[in-house]
Amino acid sequence: MNKFFEILKKSSVSNTRLGTINTSHGKINTPAFIFCGTKATVKSILPQQLYSTNTQVILSNTYHLMLQPGPEIIAKEGGLQSFTQWNGPMMTDSGGYQIFSLGHGSVSQEIKGRNNNIQKKSLIKITEEGATFRNYLNGDKVYLSPEKSIDLQRYFGADLIFVLDECTPFNVSKKYTENSMYLSHRWAKRCLNSFHSPLGKYDSNFGSSGAQSLYGIIQGGIYEDLRKIACEETCSQDFDGLAIGGSLGGNKEQMYEIFSYCENYINKSKPVHVLGIGGMDDILHGVSCGYDTFDCVSPTRIARHGIMLSKSKIKGLNLNNSKFKDDHSSIDEKCNLTEINKFTKSYIHHLFKSNEILGMVILSIYNIWFMNNFFEEIRNSIKNDQFESYKKEILVNLGK
Amino acid sequence: MNKFFEILKKSSVSNTRLGTINTSHGKINTPAFIFCGTKATVKSILPQQLYSTNTQVILSNTYHLMLQPGPEIIAKEGGLQSFTQWNGPMMTDSGGYQIFSLGHGSVSQEIKGRNNNIQKKSLIKITEEGATFRNYLNGDKVYLSPEKSIDLQRYFGADLIFVLDECTPFNVSKKYTENSMYLSHRWAKRCLNSFHSPLGKYDSNFGSSGAQSLYGIIQGGIYEDLRKIACEETCSQDFDGLAIGGSLGGNKEQMYEIFSYCENYINKSKPVHVLGIGGMDDILHGVSCGYDTFDCVSPTRIARHGIMLSKSKIKGLNLNNSKFKDDHSSIDEKCNLTEINKFTKSYIHHLFKSNEILGMVILSIYNIWFMNNFFEEIRNSIKNDQFESYKKEILVNLGK
Repeated sequence: MNKFFEILKKSSVSNTRLGTINTSHGKINTPAFIFCGTKATVKSILPQQLYSTNTQVILSNTYHLMLQPGPEIIAKEGGLQSFTQWNGPMMTDSGGYQIFSLGHGSVSQEIKGRNNNIQKKSLIKITEEGATFRNYLNGDKVYLSPEKSIDLQRYFGADLIFVLDECTPFNVSKKYTENSMYLSHRWAKRCLNSFHSPLGKYDSNFGSSGAQSLYGIIQGGIYEDLRKIACEETCSQDFDGLAIGGSLGGNKEQMYEIFSYCENYINKSKPVHVLGIGGMDDILHGVSCGYDTFDCVSPTRIARHGIMLSKSKIKGLNLNNSKFKDDHSSIDEKCNLTEINKFTKSYIHHLFKSNEILGMVILSIYNIWFMNNFFEEIRNSIKNDQFESYKKEILVNLGK
Repeated sequence: MNKFFEILKKSSVSNTRLGTINTSHGKINTPAFIFCGTKATVKSILPQQLYSTNTQVILSNTYHLMLQPGPEIIAKEGGLQSFTQWNGPMMTDSGGYQIFSLGHGSVSQEIKGRNNNIQKKSLIKITEEGATFRNYLNGDKVYLSPEKSIDLQRYFGADLIFVLDECTPFNVSKKYTENSMYLSHRWAKRCLNSFHSPLGKYDSNFGSSGAQSLYGIIQGGIYEDLRKIACEETCSQDFDGLAIGGSLGGNKEQMYEIFSYCENYINKSKPVHVLGIGGMDDILHGVSCGYDTFDCVSPTRIARHGIMLSKSKIKGLNLNNSKFKDDHSSIDEKCNLTEINKFTKSYIHHLFKSNEILGMVILSIYNIWFMNNFFEEIRNSIKNDQFESYKKEILVNLGK
């Protein structure tokens, strides 16, 4: 088997790089976008459509899968790839993000600095040992520890897996962020130990030991000194990859500052994943810092709300808008996907006006194709020493 | 162009027959099943998936399309086939079924004799001239006449279109059924006149005159004498095809009696469509009577509720059932559709438990494939003079 991560080319003016992550389910050309298949499905999309859109890798969520269908069902099927029939590389998160979103309302709002605590809290407690929370499906108490998270991810069998961390929110004190970071560091070591231990009753049948790669997660919130400590600690451990997690600040400037803090202290021989980032501008900044992979629900989530990604509008085109009713142009004349490229905007507008699932399907396929095409352009621009001008052109078109 | 309808083979023991309906968008091998694409989409399914499942023809609903997106949008796109990117044969109904379902609660319940008037009535009045009702989307008054229904269907441009009729419900008197039948006969003549008249402002641009075929609809409810009158009247007119509509009784025995009444009096040189029938047993009885096409929402509707069609269970297999949680067998080992045939029942069960759209997509594709495969077997059995034994075998397996 090839080395897990290979750097094929590096920019002479920045940390931007071209690479390959090798997994037992195939290679990932980086920079790459990772699509969310939360509950073992990229919502509304067949594996065949993931292939046709040149998707490289998808991410499922340990928290959701541990509750439904549970690890035994997936292990019996031979792991997530057999279960989902997506035979390319997969990633699972550790459950940390969801568990702490349950404690702090919506983390996706929280880590961006918006404290709208409207989601019902169901975290019961976090201790040194682990976290106890309520099963959102039936109210049962559920316990998750670093060891359990790793075991679950080994049963699921994704290629790229994560340590359990506390995903620190934005609206907490520096002291909370610091204590939380140290807790995450202790949990990370327990995850490493668990990762290298026998799997228990599924070990002989279903464990995919050796075939999985473990990512450590860098916390530290918006504080440069904490990010430095987190980078040094995480990089000193025997992880296959690194991830930038926790709060990325309350605005884009703070996010890009955090990107820079980590860029300075990170081990550049390992692949770096940025958790939960999907904006084209944010991705371009991340690529500038030498970050290799990005995941976000947004391309497929906005698709289900009628929004198609666009290089000329940062928020995309909202096909619900009445101006598209009489727009008989095709979805995108540059799109070469024969399964969807003949549909007109008028037809897709009609589907959303009629609450038809097919509208969601078409735009999900389109947005996945769009993101994969965007990353292919990024990789080509790096290959041709033109990333900086490509980045500038995209940002100018987006009005950024 | 070939003759509209050709009979290729006829059974020696019944009216069962093999045929071809020729349209400008291709031929339909009969007996054939027609899938519902109510609002210009077979719910959740891409045209490419209709092709891969060997779908021959789909039906859209004039009532829904006249309100959203309206005839001008579809005419500007060049008709329903361009709009939907389904380039095979299409059928539109006349709007009669929906209009009268608005007046009688749910007609689908009503024509089967169950009078659950829970759906809000929005029919305002029916006169000799036409029907006025409330737009279910915005409350506006909308008017539909025989002439308007035909004009709408000409703008939509489907290959097979229908006269406007009053779809007589079950729970009305014989007198009501008789008067309604005569009203439908007068409307049918107006439809024929309209069908052969210029189309007005869209005539030169979008009319598909000559390329469309008009079906008359046989009413008469559960009454043999009325069905006889309706058959004779409808068969005496210059329709391209015939359809059996209105109430088909309160149980299967009554339905099959009505099938027999019509069988006796129908013009056997024209293709015969049975409106709204999707049960395998009912279809086999219809084919025995020499009926050629059948449409029903049920295969795709039940799919969206987790039910897969089966040759061993008349109501299908409900994959929501907990016994499928741990069933790791593939959906159907006889299914050759590579886009779905590797999924296990356990995975599909998980998708429905998780309210994931992909479950609906997979079972919709499966049920469409299943029905098309069922009809292919019917056609092959007729070809090989084995329809009677095939019918018997299927009914025995279904416990009928």
